[in-house]
Amino acid sequence: MTGRLTIALDAMGGDHAPGAVLRGANLALRRHPNVNYLVYGRSEDVEPLLRKLKRLRRAVEFVHTDEVVGSDVKPSVALRTGRKSSMRLAIEAVKGNLAKAVVSSGNTGALMAMAKLALRTLPGVDRPAIASFFPTQRGESVMLDLGANVICDSDNLVQFSVMGTAFARSVLGLPAPSFGLLNVGTEEMKGNEALQEAAAILRTTNLAGQFHGFVEGDDIAKGTVDVVVTDGFTGNVALKTAEGTVKLYTEFLRATFRHSLLASLGYLLAKPAMRKLRARVDPRRYNGAVFLGLNGIAVKSHGGSDALGFAHAIGLAVDLARHGFIETMREDFVSLAAARDGTAPRVAAS
Amino acid sequence: MTGRLTIALDAMGGDHAPGAVLRGANLALRRHPNVNYLVYGRSEDVEPLLRKLKRLRRAVEFVHTDEVVGSDVKPSVALRTGRKSSMRLAIEAVKGNLAKAVVSSGNTGALMAMAKLALRTLPGVDRPAIASFFPTQRGESVMLDLGANVICDSDNLVQFSVMGTAFARSVLGLPAPSFGLLNVGTEEMKGNEALQEAAAILRTTNLAGQFHGFVEGDDIAKGTVDVVVTDGFTGNVALKTAEGTVKLYTEFLRATFRHSLLASLGYLLAKPAMRKLRARVDPRRYNGAVFLGLNGIAVKSHGGSDALGFAHAIGLAVDLARHGFIETMREDFVSLAAARDGTAPRVAAS
Repeated sequence: MTGRLTIALDAMGGDHAPGAVLRGANLALRRHPNVNYLVYGRSEDVEPLLRKLKRLRRAVEFVHTDEVVGSDVKPSVALRTGRKSSMRLAIEAVKGNLAKAVVSSGNTGALMAMAKLALRTLPGVDRPAIASFFPTQRGESVMLDLGANVICDSDNLVQFSVMGTAFARSVLGLPAPSFGLLNVGTEEMKGNEALQEAAAILRTTNLAGQFHGFVEGDDIAKGTVDVVVTDGFTGNVALKTAEGTVKLYTEFLRATFRHSLLASLGYLLAKPAMRKLRARVDPRRYNGAVFLGLNGIAVKSHGGSDALGFAHAIGLAVDLARHGFIETMREDFVSLAAARDGTAPRVAAS
Repeated sequence: MTGRLTIALDAMGGDHAPGAVLRGANLALRRHPNVNYLVYGRSEDVEPLLRKLKRLRRAVEFVHTDEVVGSDVKPSVALRTGRKSSMRLAIEAVKGNLAKAVVSSGNTGALMAMAKLALRTLPGVDRPAIASFFPTQRGESVMLDLGANVICDSDNLVQFSVMGTAFARSVLGLPAPSFGLLNVGTEEMKGNEALQEAAAILRTTNLAGQFHGFVEGDDIAKGTVDVVVTDGFTGNVALKTAEGTVKLYTEFLRATFRHSLLASLGYLLAKPAMRKLRARVDPRRYNGAVFLGLNGIAVKSHGGSDALGFAHAIGLAVDLARHGFIETMREDFVSLAAARDGTAPRVAAS
């Protein structure tokens, strides 16, 4: 699957738009020379940049629009007023099969609302979720939901499990990823009703992934499972807590090396290695949250991401498109429905 | 307040009991020479150690009991069968006013259940919570609940706010600590119903602390507020996620310094400073979770803690007792009741 692939870009989303978007798209062409872009944005902002980025220009089809979704606009307002926005047009390109995926650094809530409306959810999916990679002691894992659904029932958690393992199979190339439900303990009676019900269903339902059971907060960074499944409230808090902890540690480390002349000298010697460490925990490497459960690939890049971060988000969209991710997931939901019609206990949505 | 103070110790709790408990108690005497201990445990395990620790022996009154609460025993079973256990007797010492506080590294659920039954909650407290300190970019903050209550309503969260700020006033010495509710965003409409109701109450109720509003996961390590208030599910996941992230980072750091000869040399030069860094993120420094809302001081030391960790937990118990923490909190709950009877909106428990 190395034929040409078109990705739709919202040039106007994010704190550093359109510069970070276009420079990121340019950067991504190095790793993915067979990608074309459909770029939506304001011509007066986009075209001067395109003139400078020659390699990019050859890969771009540009569509002008005046409308932009503001970063603070409520999703409902964005849906009503942003019909001609760069974000919406980029999503519509996926719906109309002009592009295989859309990438935006814009307003998360608006992007999710528009993507849901335009692309619809796959059969068997009640609610889409937001998923992302993160580094672990064993490599990389996936976590979802990171904030789309504050309250989740057991069916949502079961569906997230299917979505997350499909994602890990496609992008991490694991044939049968392990997955676990995030909880406050690993014993069966731990947690709330939704977790206990979901675990009961997952224990008896044959899925593409391997159900590990419950995992705890420290299992996230340990890499105990390939996919950590949780509600959007807990996932969002866990993700941001981890980010905050990395920043705190980095701050402490900086203070340590400024602590004495010897330490400063030590830092100088270790500098090339430290640069590798920074790259390893660099959030830009993990940029790109995927909206899972939709009938199309939508990747949300961090609002503050620079060109390198945006290039990573594009890379993720390309990987998903090349691996036929939507088809994988569609099949997995057909299997889930069959499994649950058969042997699995039916549990009423709470 | 430097008179003599008695602390009750469960010598048999934790992975390294009774060695870590007794050596920790010995260590704590250096910083707190005016402390006596009431020690409960098996004489055949405890007395040989006491013979070796001479300074400790002079500060100890030892009470033999054969019974020990196992680390995997359910709280309900521990309540029924552990009436003569070292854990229960240590708690009863606080109830009977023989000691000002109890410290145990034993089974958390059993300790909480026994402490609740024996010490009772303070007037105005529906459910006790578990609180602990953690390091931040601005110093130290407090977080609660860390796992006692998986599901919380708005009244619980309001009460946790009072408990947490009373704790921060006593131990951090802040006259009016700032506190915030952990959420997935800072806007008013974010989060679930319990959070929105709790925020509405806290905005209009005059408390000893200053209500900051909602905070997010990355605010924990930033130290945005002195007290982070959350339900026991989210707090437990956030705490363990942060712990796991610190371990991951430390692992990456270790690999970095092994990366090349130059980096190893750099490490040697920076070693004294690195030791300070390790001390700064050393979980033993933050050992000691407090059960808040009880009519008595109960401190839970980590099950895996060593002597140094246990000494920190004792230090925390001493600080709380010296600062008249229970009286502070009792008064704060009288104020809360008065404030809510008066101007504050009454919100039905959900």
